[in-house]
Amino acid sequence: MKRILIVGGGFGGVYTALALEKLVGRDPGVEIALVSKENYLTFQPMLPEVISGSIGIVDTISPIRRLCPNTNLYTRTVEKIDLERNRVIATAGFGSRQCELDYDHLVVALGNVTSFAGQPGLTEHALPFKYLGDALALRNRVIHTLEEADLEPDAEMRRALLTFVVAGGGFSGVEAVAELNDFVRAAAKSFRRVRPDEIRVVLLHAQGLILPELPRSLAEFAQRLLMKRGVEIRLNTRLHGATMDAALLVGGERIATRTLVSTVPSAPNPLVAMLPCKKEKGRIVVNRHLQLPDFPGVWAVGDCAWILDAATGEPCPPTAQHAIREARCLAANIVADLRGGAKKEFSFSALGKMGSLGHRSAVAEVFGLKISGFLAWWLWRTVYLMKLPGLDRKIRVATDWTLDLLLPPDLVQLKTDKGFAIRREHFEPNEVIFREGDRGDWLYVVVEGEVAISRDVPGQGEVTLRTLGPGECFGEIALVSDQARSATARSRSSVNLLAVDRDAFQALFTNLPPLRGFFEQLIAGRSR
Amino acid sequence: MKRILIVGGGFGGVYTALALEKLVGRDPGVEIALVSKENYLTFQPMLPEVISGSIGIVDTISPIRRLCPNTNLYTRTVEKIDLERNRVIATAGFGSRQCELDYDHLVVALGNVTSFAGQPGLTEHALPFKYLGDALALRNRVIHTLEEADLEPDAEMRRALLTFVVAGGGFSGVEAVAELNDFVRAAAKSFRRVRPDEIRVVLLHAQGLILPELPRSLAEFAQRLLMKRGVEIRLNTRLHGATMDAALLVGGERIATRTLVSTVPSAPNPLVAMLPCKKEKGRIVVNRHLQLPDFPGVWAVGDCAWILDAATGEPCPPTAQHAIREARCLAANIVADLRGGAKKEFSFSALGKMGSLGHRSAVAEVFGLKISGFLAWWLWRTVYLMKLPGLDRKIRVATDWTLDLLLPPDLVQLKTDKGFAIRREHFEPNEVIFREGDRGDWLYVVVEGEVAISRDVPGQGEVTLRTLGPGECFGEIALVSDQARSATARSRSSVNLLAVDRDAFQALFTNLPPLRGFFEQLIAGRSR
Repeated sequence: MKRILIVGGGFGGVYTALALEKLVGRDPGVEIALVSKENYLTFQPMLPEVISGSIGIVDTISPIRRLCPNTNLYTRTVEKIDLERNRVIATAGFGSRQCELDYDHLVVALGNVTSFAGQPGLTEHALPFKYLGDALALRNRVIHTLEEADLEPDAEMRRALLTFVVAGGGFSGVEAVAELNDFVRAAAKSFRRVRPDEIRVVLLHAQGLILPELPRSLAEFAQRLLMKRGVEIRLNTRLHGATMDAALLVGGERIATRTLVSTVPSAPNPLVAMLPCKKEKGRIVVNRHLQLPDFPGVWAVGDCAWILDAATGEPCPPTAQHAIREARCLAANIVADLRGGAKKEFSFSALGKMGSLGHRSAVAEVFGLKISGFLAWWLWRTVYLMKLPGLDRKIRVATDWTLDLLLPPDLVQLKTDKGFAIRREHFEPNEVIFREGDRGDWLYVVVEGEVAISRDVPGQGEVTLRTLGPGECFGEIALVSDQARSATARSRSSVNLLAVDRDAFQALFTNLPPLRGFFEQLIAGRSR
Repeated sequence: MKRILIVGGGFGGVYTALALEKLVGRDPGVEIALVSKENYLTFQPMLPEVISGSIGIVDTISPIRRLCPNTNLYTRTVEKIDLERNRVIATAGFGSRQCELDYDHLVVALGNVTSFAGQPGLTEHALPFKYLGDALALRNRVIHTLEEADLEPDAEMRRALLTFVVAGGGFSGVEAVAELNDFVRAAAKSFRRVRPDEIRVVLLHAQGLILPELPRSLAEFAQRLLMKRGVEIRLNTRLHGATMDAALLVGGERIATRTLVSTVPSAPNPLVAMLPCKKEKGRIVVNRHLQLPDFPGVWAVGDCAWILDAATGEPCPPTAQHAIREARCLAANIVADLRGGAKKEFSFSALGKMGSLGHRSAVAEVFGLKISGFLAWWLWRTVYLMKLPGLDRKIRVATDWTLDLLLPPDLVQLKTDKGFAIRREHFEPNEVIFREGDRGDWLYVVVEGEVAISRDVPGQGEVTLRTLGPGECFGEIALVSDQARSATARSRSSVNLLAVDRDAFQALFTNLPPLRGFFEQLIAGRSR
């Protein structure tokens, strides 16, 4: 039994699984496994429409299980890729057991990540725009600021609340600002004390013309259209940083705002950065068969791979179109490797580019033709509807779009913020809280009851090391040392606990010296 | 200008505003104001359908602004009702200013709240089922457990993951268990390693027959139907408590499960409990005009009001049907008070009762007729569709229902858990972090940079009390004393902070003695 393991649930990863399913069929000798953080594939081109609610919240995403019914899906986060031992380690789920997966073939499809490093305040106050959660968070922020503006008497505060800034004039920034602008202006009509002329939507772009991916005439069309709709375009302007109530520009200017979206920065996935293989601009260098030259059986696809087109010798751009074609080529080459046969070289020239401008308008360049306005919009919808994976999704989105022509935009604010995690837990007497050897992701504080800490000693069985009562904590060693649990914790009586996760622990305990001192002493004492 | 202030955004509150808008029209001498925690009205009867995704996530809720366009909506949480001074105090929004609202007429429509007090472990581990967020959380939990079960090799763990327990056999429990059962069994088909016979759905009910609100024959029909669909009904069984992986029954039995839903407990809203007026079973006693006898100008409506029907003398049940009729009577009586005229006495006999059993079946008792099966289900859908407020919602739900007949259920897991809040903030030099007199909801820890604490001293202007650097914290006094900020905090340099909210602060700092000691010393030192 050979296992083909794909890490990453974006276009590259999911389409590799899809193509493999078609080629391998139900061959009992081959297992296709996919590790993905989410159980769905996000269809990014439609994310901006989540802002306005013009398509349903879950309709931009497709469940991977339904797309790839013959693939074993592991909904987990990858923690480590060990190319020496042919093994991938993923996080634990409900239980505390990590998930170790060996492979015969490995496909790295980890894409890239949003990174605000080097721009002060962006991590804290800017909204990224890459995943479904980001689009939902932005939608909520917009509704929240409108709610607040409706109540706010102070003129300066109102100005900040009613100013919306998007940084980055590429495809994703332009599509986001177009939808944002349409939505804010339509939604504001339901707010009695918000006047249309108070709303300001600003697009920041570092160069002299937006949409550098498109021909000049189309970019100019898009620019004029957005301006006509009330978007203020600031060209040759760079974002320096952010605070809670302002976007800070390079040069010192500040724009008072409570809503700053940054679509610009992307960085290599840290897992890719740690791989001991050759890279170019942070992307994994593969040969023309999409294979890593120094690691047989390891492949890379999509945004995280540095692929030179076999026909032109040019590097492939990080787009979904390319990822899908690369995935098909890669799947065929893996099967050639397994069953024997010639491998294919990858080559593909993009069919076209298009961007939606909201409000029944778009720009497109298809097979060299330039199209703008309603026709481009119609084309955009049609193409993306065809590409959207899954028939049920196609039907749902088509219905949403039809309703959207008739109904006013939605105003409900669904709260989805997620910070660090601290939660409460309850145990009845004599239950295991965690077991020696488990992976530890939580620190526990006893609120009520008694907890026994024990260890398995060879020859003596389980030996109780200590018992803990209210106000005492345990589990800290695994959090600071990154090792597995060194002992077992068990409730002696009915126990209430406070569980603090790794991120919250690190944020609090590395920044508050009395806490740091307390934990350092505690750990030193216990390890003696 | 007279202000009619409604507190509470459920059926009672929103329908009072609706009725007032119709009666008062655009009279410039009357302001209708509504304070609600959410900016939408939740249509509870359809919540169970959110579990299966058979209607869109936001389609069970209607934006209040659109329902009541002439009402001033305050999307805030009520903190205090001061009947002596005719004033309501609500929380601050983005800024730190509390919101104080005076009133001429006050309508208390605060409903009741879920309370797990007295049942160990339920607060920590049971899922309530009252708000939209609860339905979403349950949906996510079900998908998450299926994801985990698909990967889990351990037989005992699998059993707990694939067991789903609902406590409470009244309307909401039965509707929830019916949808849950349908959804789990349909969704499990997409999980390759979950067998249908491994799934167990259990309904716990304290009495001998479910649906005590309905005639015996209908309840028996519902019970037989649920059992036929695979729901295990445990009669005369009470829930005692819960742990992370089990539901604990009175008598000592434990059912291993990771998904426990409790629809039983409701308690008076704490704000109602604190009101210095006459109450009966925790509900506010009103006269037949729905007015508080001892507080002129104060009214109560819905689940939080103790109303005796003028015709029968019986207390009105806490249902949406009644709340809507009470709201109309109440609105007419307020207008009679304002403009002169006779007040109406409240009387209403319910038209009927119905409960959905999922899968195109329901039970109903309407005008004394008993109906069950498909006809009842069709009636249920039609009646609720008519009652659903807002034409756009009616269209969306009707469309969803149509699609649902054709398409498979959705599997995507949207993560929405929200725990305590700890977040990061960034300030540029010389910005105000908070101001003396603001309301304080956060404790700050300096991660980087310098913060100055100052106070306005009469005659001397602003005086700097101290400056703080990395590892030091501020803002703790407002959190422990519940008072406004006693000083102003300003960034001296570029500053990064960690902000800890009141709940997280209290959970951590009251339970960890070294921290408690540290903060007690800090506060004692500073207040000297």
